[in-house]
Amino acid sequence: MKKRDILTPVGITLGTIMIMFGILSSGGASGVQSFIQVSSIVIILGGLVAALIINFNISEIKLTFRVFKETFQQNDSNLRELITLFIRLSERARREGLLALESELEEVGDPFIRKGILLAVDGIEPEVIQDIMDAEIAALEERHQRGRSIIEKAGEYAPAWGMIGTLISLVLMLNSLTDPTTLGPKMAVALLTTFYGTVMANLVFIPMAGKLENKTEQEVFIKQIIIEGVIGVQSGQNPKILEEKLSAFLSEEEKQESQEEEAYVGEAANEA
Amino acid sequence: MKKRDILTPVGITLGTIMIMFGILSSGGASGVQSFIQVSSIVIILGGLVAALIINFNISEIKLTFRVFKETFQQNDSNLRELITLFIRLSERARREGLLALESELEEVGDPFIRKGILLAVDGIEPEVIQDIMDAEIAALEERHQRGRSIIEKAGEYAPAWGMIGTLISLVLMLNSLTDPTTLGPKMAVALLTTFYGTVMANLVFIPMAGKLENKTEQEVFIKQIIIEGVIGVQSGQNPKILEEKLSAFLSEEEKQESQEEEAYVGEAANEA
Amino acid sequence: MKKRDILTPVGITLGTIMIMFGILSSGGASGVQSFIQVSSIVIILGGLVAALIINFNISEIKLTFRVFKETFQQNDSNLRELITLFIRLSERARREGLLALESELEEVGDPFIRKGILLAVDGIEPEVIQDIMDAEIAALEERHQRGRSIIEKAGEYAPAWGMIGTLISLVLMLNSLTDPTTLGPKMAVALLTTFYGTVMANLVFIPMAGKLENKTEQEVFIKQIIIEGVIGVQSGQNPKILEEKLSAFLSEEEKQESQEEEAYVGEAANEA
Amino acid sequence: MKKRDILTPVGITLGTIMIMFGILSSGGASGVQSFIQVSSIVIILGGLVAALIINFNISEIKLTFRVFKETFQQNDSNLRELITLFIRLSERARREGLLALESELEEVGDPFIRKGILLAVDGIEPEVIQDIMDAEIAALEERHQRGRSIIEKAGEYAPAWGMIGTLISLVLMLNSLTDPTTLGPKMAVALLTTFYGTVMANLVFIPMAGKLENKTEQEVFIKQIIIEGVIGVQSGQNPKILEEKLSAFLSEEEKQESQEEEAYVGEAANEA
Amino acid sequence: MKKRDILTPVGITLGTIMIMFGILSSGGASGVQSFIQVSSIVIILGGLVAALIINFNISEIKLTFRVFKETFQQNDSNLRELITLFIRLSERARREGLLALESELEEVGDPFIRKGILLAVDGIEPEVIQDIMDAEIAALEERHQRGRSIIEKAGEYAPAWGMIGTLISLVLMLNSLTDPTTLGPKMAVALLTTFYGTVMANLVFIPMAGKLENKTEQEVFIKQIIIEGVIGVQSGQNPKILEEKLSAFLSEEEKQESQEEEAYVGEAANEA
Repeated sequence: MKKRDILTPVGITLGTIMIMFGILSSGGASGVQSFIQVSSIVIILGGLVAALIINFNISEIKLTFRVFKETFQQNDSNLRELITLFIRLSERARREGLLALESELEEVGDPFIRKGILLAVDGIEPEVIQDIMDAEIAALEERHQRGRSIIEKAGEYAPAWGMIGTLISLVLMLNSLTDPTTLGPKMAVALLTTFYGTVMANLVFIPMAGKLENKTEQEVFIKQIIIEGVIGVQSGQNPKILEEKLSAFLSEEEKQESQEEEAYVGEAANEA
Repeated sequence: MKKRDILTPVGITLGTIMIMFGILSSGGASGVQSFIQVSSIVIILGGLVAALIINFNISEIKLTFRVFKETFQQNDSNLRELITLFIRLSERARREGLLALESELEEVGDPFIRKGILLAVDGIEPEVIQDIMDAEIAALEERHQRGRSIIEKAGEYAPAWGMIGTLISLVLMLNSLTDPTTLGPKMAVALLTTFYGTVMANLVFIPMAGKLENKTEQEVFIKQIIIEGVIGVQSGQNPKILEEKLSAFLSEEEKQESQEEEAYVGEAANEA
Repeated sequence: MKKRDILTPVGITLGTIMIMFGILSSGGASGVQSFIQVSSIVIILGGLVAALIINFNISEIKLTFRVFKETFQQNDSNLRELITLFIRLSERARREGLLALESELEEVGDPFIRKGILLAVDGIEPEVIQDIMDAEIAALEERHQRGRSIIEKAGEYAPAWGMIGTLISLVLMLNSLTDPTTLGPKMAVALLTTFYGTVMANLVFIPMAGKLENKTEQEVFIKQIIIEGVIGVQSGQNPKILEEKLSAFLSEEEKQESQEEEAYVGEAANEA
Repeated sequence: MKKRDILTPVGITLGTIMIMFGILSSGGASGVQSFIQVSSIVIILGGLVAALIINFNISEIKLTFRVFKETFQQNDSNLRELITLFIRLSERARREGLLALESELEEVGDPFIRKGILLAVDGIEPEVIQDIMDAEIAALEERHQRGRSIIEKAGEYAPAWGMIGTLISLVLMLNSLTDPTTLGPKMAVALLTTFYGTVMANLVFIPMAGKLENKTEQEVFIKQIIIEGVIGVQSGQNPKILEEKLSAFLSEEEKQESQEEEAYVGEAANEA
Repeated sequence: MKKRDILTPVGITLGTIMIMFGILSSGGASGVQSFIQVSSIVIILGGLVAALIINFNISEIKLTFRVFKETFQQNDSNLRELITLFIRLSERARREGLLALESELEEVGDPFIRKGILLAVDGIEPEVIQDIMDAEIAALEERHQRGRSIIEKAGEYAPAWGMIGTLISLVLMLNSLTDPTTLGPKMAVALLTTFYGTVMANLVFIPMAGKLENKTEQEVFIKQIIIEGVIGVQSGQNPKILEEKLSAFLSEEEKQESQEEEAYVGEAANEA
């Protein structure tokens, strides 16, 4: 279900090119040098890590690496296929009973759907199935939210520590204000940590946290359709009504794309 | 149901004229030149696109174009007509049965109303109809919210990348602070990306996201009245009570405009 | 039920006097001149209108004028009178039946109370009455919120366009930085749009949006007491219990003011 | 139940001393003078009052004075005593019937508890008691929130009007920039309103609004325990279970402090 | 259940080293001196304490010290062990009755689990158990939130008082602007309180408040699983279903780690 999400590396590369272009176009090759200041990078990265280490515990910090990797992966779900699957399961269950679904399980890859069908085959009541599967969604949201929150916090601490770095340089510079000609370059160095902090926040942390939030929403959305489907199959709901219910989640475009199928399914449902 | 929304292009044009007027009135024709700086435009647009590409996935980015187009369209719904329609349907259903509504379907343009009436004619129970139609509203809100969120995020990233552009120019400028007479023009260039970012956010992205949010709210509002109406028709509710219920959604002005009709409808309902 | 709210014009006048005083006390009569700059006013007003035109549709913009007028009006509701009214209605309904309330209707000015009593007299069940009247409150909140949101947005766009105006002037000024003696007055002009934007936001838009929000809350609060009262009357609730319920909404002061009445009402209720 | 809250005057005094210390330590006695500028004080106070007058209506503004006074008072509630009271009432009600509680009423000072017990003695059903007492809490929250919101808004308007005052001075100063030596003192005066606004917000308005919010939360918390207790007493709940329920609201410390009592109460409950 | 959380002191030490490194790398040993200014430290700490003293009452301020200590402690809960415990309890209760659980109590360390099992053994109904334990969670959240809110507020007041200190120094400096050569060092001193405030907020208060929030969420999460478990045990739920329900709270990794156990438990459950 996962494939590489090429947009994240493309975006970071594009943003870096833009910044390089900005520097080169008005500062030339020598301008690049003035943006590389090891001590400034150490301060902002160190300060950021310090704040995050205090803010989170070890298991949450471990979560971050997994979560970071996820922004380079993409979920690959086809809503229409999902609906077709549940209509097929629903028809079969009405014809041959819930136990017949056991043989369909081999074709189902998604563990969440498998779990739901297994519970239905086991004869667990719909309310209990709903409870168990809702708990799984709630736990998934909780876990994702926790992993994401480190990246969100990093997006807040980065500009703050950029400002701390700039204040340090400013205080030192103002204290030794003997030679006004050195004012400019010193001021430039002072601004560097602010620059690093802003870039880190707006090119890496905030967009990544945004992507993770979108991914969580999408996963939850699909899992909710699956619950709706499992409950419908288990309670022997009319396949036509089940399809009406599940199709409500499709956009207008997706609905039009699947008109032929729908016509077919409608007939099948009428027969049943 | 859609007509061109002339306000969006008018607003953007007006805002652009205001900015031109501001430049020309104090800077003259030569002043316009100093606001066109290709490299600054490239940095801010590139950075904005980079952040958005990381923040969203491909299907969401495709959504943006559709959503962007929507800000130039306007929904054209008449609440009063809607209420009259449901009162007529309600009276007919009470006189001739729900099946008689099938012949009315041809005159109904809105697919959401059609769907509701079809479900009622099919004899589906009210709770199931409510479920199906609520799911459709929820999915519509989800889709709109997702499309809108790109524009909202663009309104946040634009000023941030404007600031990044300004910081780049400032650092370069301060590093080569040999000739104070060139300070002014360099500083002016540095401010340009901040200017671009602020204008993009406050003339394009934030107002457009606002318009999209208002449109979603309005569509949901009307769809909720439709559900209320379909359920009322299906459950054979007294047309007078149904009208009381639906009229509650009208403002005082709309109520007064429709007093004559109401008088007529009241009589009709008493007869029934 | 509406009387002029004198506080809004008094507040705007006071704020304007304060600003004039601030200018005159340190700048003298000649200082006033430097705050009147037609082109700056045009830019900020034009930009503000442009953003609002994009953000809202025509019917919402029409709403603004009505809503603006409302900040100069005041609701005039007496909670204690309201409670007394419902206790009287409740006692009469218990003695003479709900139909007897029809004769009381002439004395009731508020259309919302009239509607509730009419529904009760018509024999509609309590749940339906609650539904209809809740829908009216929800629609009122929706309408008010929509009207208010333009003023709120104006409070956000005004400072943003003030900053855009200042950036335009700054860029032009820095580009023609030949004569340092003209720097001061040019900088002063640049700051004017920021000044206009901040004053417009903090003297007009934000306080007005605040007043509208308070008015909506208060209206909804009173309408909820009315629903509680209508339902109590209709379901033949003991007037003493009804009074206990409705009095819960009064503050300690209001309760003490009405102690004599309460004593009387208590007796009346015991008789019933 | 109210005693003087000494923390509010202590805090304001301490904050004022800190500011005086800051001024004296680097500016000496003559420095104090430069912070007293009558016209600046007039502008910021006048502007603040103007904004608040527009934002609120007369009855809300009257509320402020009462609310202001409350920040100098402290609620004096003992959770453990409250629980002991309800266990005693519960035991007595189970032994001698609800009517026997009437004789306990004289010892109960809190009007909210009295009201609850009176309703229970009157034989009102638990759901109605819950309704009435919940309505009282909701009205209390509403009233407190309204009073607090003026102080909160003052904390937002104060810095904004400080900025307006500074902008006025800056524009005037820049316009008459003939003698650079007067630049410093004029700039100092310009910053004064910003200083006043920030101090007013962070020493008076924001902390006071915070204290009021905490007080409301605490009052609501205690009133909810009281409702729980009254309902338990009225429905003849086992005193041991009632104690378990109410003790859940205590912290670990409070629980340990009351272990001996608990032992006693446990026995008493077992006898019952 | 508590062990030392080493991350908090490590983070604060790391952040301090970074700041020292930043100062030493560009200012040398003499630069450190210019960051130590007793009067600035007094102003910002005094102002911060003043604002907090007004904002909170004595019992809340006492809570802070306990809460502060908590950021140096770590909860040590093993979700998998918890689930195994409840499955064991559930099986035993089904075989030997709820009373048999009393002998298991000695092995259970957590007072919240003990309380739940004791209530179950006492034969209290599930709804009442749920009520009592939910109330305990709600009270825990309330208490934690109150303790945390002081640290959160400190993170807001610290930068604000840093700005007040800077404004005091700026006004004094600008008033005595006779010798431009002293401008630099005076400006440096003025910036110090801003520096202190920003560091205190971003190295101490905001990260600590974040850690406390995470700890509360985690504790509540675990307590909710415990309630789910106690209710399941008490209502004699099938151990297999109970395990399905509780396992939903595990992440994918935790599930895989416990596959062998699950196999065993599954068999045991089938026997039951």
